[in-house]
Amino acid sequence: MEPEPPGASGPAEPGPRVRGVRGAAHAASASVLSGAEAEPQRCALAVAAVLPAGGSGERMGVPTPKQFCPILERPLISYTLQAMERVCWIKDIVVAVTRENMEAMRGIIQRYQHRRISLVEAGVTRHRSIFNGLKALAEDQPHSKLSKPEVVIIHDAVRPFVEEDILLKVATAAKEHGCSDYDLEFGTECLQLALKYCHVKAKLVEGSPDLWKVTYKRDLYAAESIIKERISQQICIVMDDEEDVGRLLEETLKNELNHVKVTSGPLCHAGRHLHQIILEQCYSFVCVNVMTSEFEETQKLLNLLKESNFSILYPVVVISVHFLDYKSVPFDRKMENLMQIRELAKEVKERNILLCGLLIYYPQDEQKLQDSLRQGASLIATFIRERNSAFIGQLLIA
Amino acid sequence: MEPEPPGASGPAEPGPRVRGVRGAAHAASASVLSGAEAEPQRCALAVAAVLPAGGSGERMGVPTPKQFCPILERPLISYTLQAMERVCWIKDIVVAVTRENMEAMRGIIQRYQHRRISLVEAGVTRHRSIFNGLKALAEDQPHSKLSKPEVVIIHDAVRPFVEEDILLKVATAAKEHGCSDYDLEFGTECLQLALKYCHVKAKLVEGSPDLWKVTYKRDLYAAESIIKERISQQICIVMDDEEDVGRLLEETLKNELNHVKVTSGPLCHAGRHLHQIILEQCYSFVCVNVMTSEFEETQKLLNLLKESNFSILYPVVVISVHFLDYKSVPFDRKMENLMQIRELAKEVKERNILLCGLLIYYPQDEQKLQDSLRQGASLIATFIRERNSAFIGQLLIA
Repeated sequence: MEPEPPGASGPAEPGPRVRGVRGAAHAASASVLSGAEAEPQRCALAVAAVLPAGGSGERMGVPTPKQFCPILERPLISYTLQAMERVCWIKDIVVAVTRENMEAMRGIIQRYQHRRISLVEAGVTRHRSIFNGLKALAEDQPHSKLSKPEVVIIHDAVRPFVEEDILLKVATAAKEHGCSDYDLEFGTECLQLALKYCHVKAKLVEGSPDLWKVTYKRDLYAAESIIKERISQQICIVMDDEEDVGRLLEETLKNELNHVKVTSGPLCHAGRHLHQIILEQCYSFVCVNVMTSEFEETQKLLNLLKESNFSILYPVVVISVHFLDYKSVPFDRKMENLMQIRELAKEVKERNILLCGLLIYYPQDEQKLQDSLRQGASLIATFIRERNSAFIGQLLIA
Repeated sequence: MEPEPPGASGPAEPGPRVRGVRGAAHAASASVLSGAEAEPQRCALAVAAVLPAGGSGERMGVPTPKQFCPILERPLISYTLQAMERVCWIKDIVVAVTRENMEAMRGIIQRYQHRRISLVEAGVTRHRSIFNGLKALAEDQPHSKLSKPEVVIIHDAVRPFVEEDILLKVATAAKEHGCSDYDLEFGTECLQLALKYCHVKAKLVEGSPDLWKVTYKRDLYAAESIIKERISQQICIVMDDEEDVGRLLEETLKNELNHVKVTSGPLCHAGRHLHQIILEQCYSFVCVNVMTSEFEETQKLLNLLKESNFSILYPVVVISVHFLDYKSVPFDRKMENLMQIRELAKEVKERNILLCGLLIYYPQDEQKLQDSLRQGASLIATFIRERNSAFIGQLLIA
């Protein structure tokens, strides 16, 4: 969590703020993955959200509009939708996109299985897009499946890091508060317009310090790094409890990655185990194989992951670790076995699972083994953190 | 190059600006690597620079003050110093650091061979630090080696991306211009203080759109990505011109990385060649070896790079590509040869050279070879872009 930077060389400006307007509240804040952990909060109001996403992203310096720029191969707007739909008390989410992006947007909703989303055509300006969204929510719309809400949260499609607590704060404030001079002084054009044309009361709500907007290419870099960091906070080691060398690897990982939660368990009751792990937002798995170049256990883990289908939103990393005496003959047969990981990796890549292999010479003397384990841990940590599909199917050696 | 984002949810603020005050001008702008390409510009003025670097970086959310946070294992402030000292007409660069960071700062200057740098102790505030820097430049200082300048450019130590043209614009403006209401309206506390206490005229100069400041953790992510991207814009393939398969790899790299400049040449006259390449800021090398698992050529290249010593500032990537018929016996002997890359990589890592191997099965049928070349190209591109030292000494297979 980081506060919003002040204007770079302009006058220092007050911290991030969220605009709340009765009938139309404006939110922007941050967290990709608090969904699973967070106790769902209650909101007595009938709330809907409007996401203007008609921008052309010309400032981004890339041909694709920024809301459709990929982060880990998934469009930015999908992260924002995920953050909004996670909030159960937001009944409807209306997205305003340009006509030429309508089909692409439908594709995104289908592919990433987004729920409670309605599409409207964007206007020529951001405010017209918001207006179109609000119109779709008005009850006098013919054949509209949308119910008229008490509060509408207006949220930029390019602010993927929005948390439930701040949305609740905004929705509540939008319902209750009046307007202050402070707000008028620091409010944005949205607030001014609301006051000018909607004759409503308005209130500025202090936003999460993590409040920021993906606008430029460097913001995409930052967003990708933040998302990668957040989905790499937990590693699950699948191994047989009796295998001491597996325990050693677990200890090394814990020492090397002291900020990462490392759990372990055998595959036999991984079904239940895995379900819990998925709830805990673990997207990184290490499968320990001792004195075998076969992928039997790894294959079982991969099947469980494929069934669970939770690699839709984020790429899941699987590292098949093989402790092998690879200096013993016949070396090439073992290697040929291990090379099968290339085909295995190609196959599961289609399911957004990134598989690579790690070969550790075993048995070897205490000191050498420690060194190999440390190098192995840093290779595991790097592949998990970078999630770079170029390395899938590779057999790394520690 | 990207424009500065407006305040995220506060009032939209005008574009980036550079403060110019006669006797004290303020710059902030961007580019790591325009030095070598850019025709050095002339400045008739006697110019010095003061870099306040006394910040504690508490907003960064990391224990290290942000100016000392590592990017590619080098402290942020070293990138800023590099950008300033590149500008030949800046005679003296005075850095204000806290007493406890004085030794660390001296170490950085020595390790990265920075020139024309003087250190002064930072004050309790940014402005006191600037004052101490200016004092050191005043001619009445006893035993001072510094000459009193006509213009002093004050530049944040945490703005690593500063270009010569903007510094020239600022220095000139600082000498010439008067003060406007516009400036007073949008100027920062620095400008106000200059006006209040120094009784000087002031002018705001439009800054480069790339103007931004590393303040938060996500800014470090962005800065690292920008730097990685900039030093990965050129790849030099070292190969024997007669080797058709080398040509094929070159073609594939050109097709896969159409934004990257790919050059090639034999090692024999690489001495001159390499010198030119270094001038062109190439930090990525691919050494093509056909039908051999020996590292003779790669070793020659590594020696040339070590002599050139230009890996001080940025990690240099070397990928030793081996086209091998690795399905022919004896496979394991070839593999054991190739495994020597691990020791080679460890050795050159100390010189900030990141070495890894790439094995491509050859000969194989046209289609399979094309696929391998494509996969090889994407592995090369990834290792070059990420520059991740965890993968050094690995033997990748395409």
